[in-house]
Amino acid sequence: MQDFDLYVPTHIVFGKDRISGLKDAVAPYGKNVLLTYGGGSIKKIGLYDKVIEQLKDFNVFELSGIEPNPKITSVREGVRICKDQKIDVVLAVGGGSVIDASKNICCGAYYEGDPWDLVLDCSKVKKALPLITVLTLSATGSEYDCSAVISNSETNEKLPLFGTGILEPKVSFCDPQYTFSVPRSQTIAGAADIMSHTFETYLVKEGNVLSDAMCEGMLKTVIKYTKIAIEDPDNYEARAQLMMVSSFGCNGLLAIGRTPSPWVCHGIEHEISAYTDITHGYGLAIITPHWMSYSLTEDTVDRFAQYGINVFDIDKNLDKMEIAKLAIAKTSEFFKSIGLPQTLSELGVTSEHFEDMADHMLSHWMPVETAIRPIDKAAIIKILNDSL
Amino acid sequence: MQDFDLYVPTHIVFGKDRISGLKDAVAPYGKNVLLTYGGGSIKKIGLYDKVIEQLKDFNVFELSGIEPNPKITSVREGVRICKDQKIDVVLAVGGGSVIDASKNICCGAYYEGDPWDLVLDCSKVKKALPLITVLTLSATGSEYDCSAVISNSETNEKLPLFGTGILEPKVSFCDPQYTFSVPRSQTIAGAADIMSHTFETYLVKEGNVLSDAMCEGMLKTVIKYTKIAIEDPDNYEARAQLMMVSSFGCNGLLAIGRTPSPWVCHGIEHEISAYTDITHGYGLAIITPHWMSYSLTEDTVDRFAQYGINVFDIDKNLDKMEIAKLAIAKTSEFFKSIGLPQTLSELGVTSEHFEDMADHMLSHWMPVETAIRPIDKAAIIKILNDSL
Repeated sequence: MQDFDLYVPTHIVFGKDRISGLKDAVAPYGKNVLLTYGGGSIKKIGLYDKVIEQLKDFNVFELSGIEPNPKITSVREGVRICKDQKIDVVLAVGGGSVIDASKNICCGAYYEGDPWDLVLDCSKVKKALPLITVLTLSATGSEYDCSAVISNSETNEKLPLFGTGILEPKVSFCDPQYTFSVPRSQTIAGAADIMSHTFETYLVKEGNVLSDAMCEGMLKTVIKYTKIAIEDPDNYEARAQLMMVSSFGCNGLLAIGRTPSPWVCHGIEHEISAYTDITHGYGLAIITPHWMSYSLTEDTVDRFAQYGINVFDIDKNLDKMEIAKLAIAKTSEFFKSIGLPQTLSELGVTSEHFEDMADHMLSHWMPVETAIRPIDKAAIIKILNDSL
Repeated sequence: MQDFDLYVPTHIVFGKDRISGLKDAVAPYGKNVLLTYGGGSIKKIGLYDKVIEQLKDFNVFELSGIEPNPKITSVREGVRICKDQKIDVVLAVGGGSVIDASKNICCGAYYEGDPWDLVLDCSKVKKALPLITVLTLSATGSEYDCSAVISNSETNEKLPLFGTGILEPKVSFCDPQYTFSVPRSQTIAGAADIMSHTFETYLVKEGNVLSDAMCEGMLKTVIKYTKIAIEDPDNYEARAQLMMVSSFGCNGLLAIGRTPSPWVCHGIEHEISAYTDITHGYGLAIITPHWMSYSLTEDTVDRFAQYGINVFDIDKNLDKMEIAKLAIAKTSEFFKSIGLPQTLSELGVTSEHFEDMADHMLSHWMPVETAIRPIDKAAIIKILNDSL
């Protein structure tokens, strides 16, 4: 059993039409609200109007157009509004990208320099505006954690921002109905993201009964309900299941007592996205089975076999290595079955920058020594090449 | 999927010797500390000295002698000290009883009347002193939730106190080493308590893949590690596993998306303890299998069969009702195997007050309509009689 800290002080408000509590959630923090959102889908589904109705007694400023793989340029604009308008609280309405950008805006509002400094050196994150979120996409878990991922197109960097005890949203409203209109392409990318968060935590050297069970429950939920959600997009139960599990991806709960994980697939995918702006979940789905195959050895076979038996119900009497290989094959099959791309080439990614990506990851990502199988530059390039 | 709220803003600091961070955890709240503890076991294991060393720069006042099934009389004394000494923060060092009493003290410090009023009407809990805990017993989960249970010997009442967003500890230090000296009698009572928290949440009308997996992981952990802990009390891994899972018993995490549960066994056990002061975990272990047998019907068999298959690995090809009955039998067997009492008679409890207990539970406990099988006065008395 490894030592751990667990601290997730966000209030999750989950269920139908619970947005009616938004006004009361915002009120304790002040009158000046920065409303952040993306490309306008919240207007199409009527959510924007509901939010504005809730905020009629507040001074609302807006930052719209926050992009997938959110850019530091959007963050800078948000920080400018916060400083100019004396914003009291940020309300992010959207998916992980909007929430992530908003986290960087919240801490940027209390920082004198460029908010990208905070990404490059998270120890500079000392204070942040309060953040409230209304979730519209089941994927990143940003609504219930202290981290964000921000991209810088000028430097081809996509890096995580952390702020334990500072960047967690105060309240996150999670109404599965707001995900009914999420297109298949984003639903499956979200599924891959949720599963990857789980794999990164689950496939480590040391697990334990409780957190293994949680991880397996996460994976089984996504496998069961993604197919229903893409065939029947307004299916409340399926959307609710995906939304519920998505929130547990990155806040440390799945990691209690386990070996720390360097989140290798996320490290590699962030490099690809930084150079090519591909959809995060697509990149993860492509890389993951190759990372698994790389990581499967005689030393690690037990974990992969456990995954196969407990998640895919593979016959436990088979040879362990066979079970493990079947489990990896079934992972690929599942991704393919919901329509996820299988190769980086399909997305137009070439091997041109693989060397740079590997170098950058090793110098900027978390220490990778604790990975279930050690990772080095050659290993990263192998996984990238296998994913082409 | 049922709507839910999830809000657990406690920072869990879990692991060996992490008490070294106590000073910094207390400091933000002020200089005047009320240290609460029980019968003195924390002195025997050297923990008291470590705590005092951490608090050498604070003004420390003490309330010791907090009893199992903590009494409102202890709470009143604690409230008096808080008011007289202008206490800034309460530090509870002990198990669930010490932490529970401290929660009532924390809100009592801001209440003009008798702190028992707050138990009788939790809507009066508006504000509380900050609470920090150092856990010494794996059982109640009070270190990571907003509730407490307080007994009043004058009125033969043992009732819950709730204060969402108010009574959660700020920080809970969970070092499994402080449970090495817990005697077998308390280790097994704690195991029964953790399992009962899980059963109360798990055996409801509607579950879901993720929270079912969490519940099953909780139960399997207790079943696996309790035997190791009682045979080898200094076994860190076993003590750590029990401590880790115990914290998740009552904070709502296991209940996400499920049918609300009226916690029937706890309702009944609190009545017995209120009249007889028996050990809470013993009462639960005795009642639980009889409640399960009462609750098992054609309508509920699927849940009990799932429990049998996933927790006890019973052959899923057997008849469902047979699996369910086997699961209940195995629950009893497990309790017996670790030395828990099997009947109320063994503890000196007679049927004298069963009628009063049933009446009092129905008028003071949570609404019981949502139980997996409806409960009424006759059902409560039947379960009590079956437990004799």
